[in-house]
Amino acid sequence: MAKFEAGYFGARFSLYPMTDRYVPVILGAIDKLRSSGLEVETDDVSTFIKGDRNAVWATLEESFAKAARSGEHVVMTALVSHGCPGEELCEIDPKTGSAGAPRPHPGTGVRVSCQWSLYPLGEPGYMDVIYKAVADTKADGVFSKGRHFVSHLEGDLDRVLDSIRRTFDQACESASHVTAHITLSANSPTRKAA
Amino acid sequence: MAKFEAGYFGARFSLYPMTDRYVPVILGAIDKLRSSGLEVETDDVSTFIKGDRNAVWATLEESFAKAARSGEHVVMTALVSHGCPGEELCEIDPKTGSAGAPRPHPGTGVRVSCQWSLYPLGEPGYMDVIYKAVADTKADGVFSKGRHFVSHLEGDLDRVLDSIRRTFDQACESASHVTAHITLSANSPTRKAA
Repeated sequence: MAKFEAGYFGARFSLYPMTDRYVPVILGAIDKLRSSGLEVETDDVSTFIKGDRNAVWATLEESFAKAARSGEHVVMTALVSHGCPGEELCEIDPKTGSAGAPRPHPGTGVRVSCQWSLYPLGEPGYMDVIYKAVADTKADGVFSKGRHFVSHLEGDLDRVLDSIRRTFDQACESASHVTAHITLSANSPTRKAA
Repeated sequence: MAKFEAGYFGARFSLYPMTDRYVPVILGAIDKLRSSGLEVETDDVSTFIKGDRNAVWATLEESFAKAARSGEHVVMTALVSHGCPGEELCEIDPKTGSAGAPRPHPGTGVRVSCQWSLYPLGEPGYMDVIYKAVADTKADGVFSKGRHFVSHLEGDLDRVLDSIRRTFDQACESASHVTAHITLSANSPTRKAA
């Protein structure tokens, strides 16, 4: 643990394809990870990525879009974190990352069911930040239902992640340490039956 | 959203068996859920359980133990929450649940690799609570490694969950609203290869 400096941003994600073919589906989904320019650290439970904020979100979107396009029932969980005081110094721009070129949207047309939670930490007024985030996903047209402990979102992958990312960036204005836990599901047989 | 009263406790969990047989593995793992006495709410992404605190933890342990004993590579994610101000009134004992009889440990002998995060919310001193929790998992002999944003635990399922539960109960002494996100993995080929 080193001295805290605002700006440490990254994500930790896992892919769960519910198929005997889960290894090739996962490897196919993250085939560009090593050339993404991000710092990557993989273990037996999840993969950590760190770096430019746009590149991190784009990597999450692209990885899940590829996995979902396998047609298998697949789930991705992602923990996104900004400003964790337990992390070491990092010099990237905390809020925006590089502006860069407008990024592509590989998630367009990939229908997802999503549950997520937002945690602005260390702030007595954190619930107001959460309520604002929920209202913003409603305004974005991706909110489906409030559930115990999570919000349920539905829509195309790119729109769902863009909405979460905007609320996350806004929460970073109110709290120096913010995390979000996101579960994305595609091709669920429960969903098809419903 | 109703008026806040301390005491609302529950979990939201999902099982991800990486096999074509994922439906029977999941159904076999949660076959006793409806007779558990807990309030149960299922949707296409996760299952919410609420009620006696011991029964909630026992259900998480039993469900994952059964799924892991299928021999398939299987992951469970669980979000455990206490005192969420957005939830309605609930009259159960916030910290201990019923004392009841000593519960069985279906997780004994089920080796798991686990990553988890603890969030005491609304408290400026939340990092001290987190550092204490990490130290306690070390004292319990289940801590494996500190990773970005999470702690990595290893050991038998019952010991790992018991350690997390103790730290969670302790965190509830310091913050009125506490959540934890837990990822449990069993039978991973990555692990076997390592």
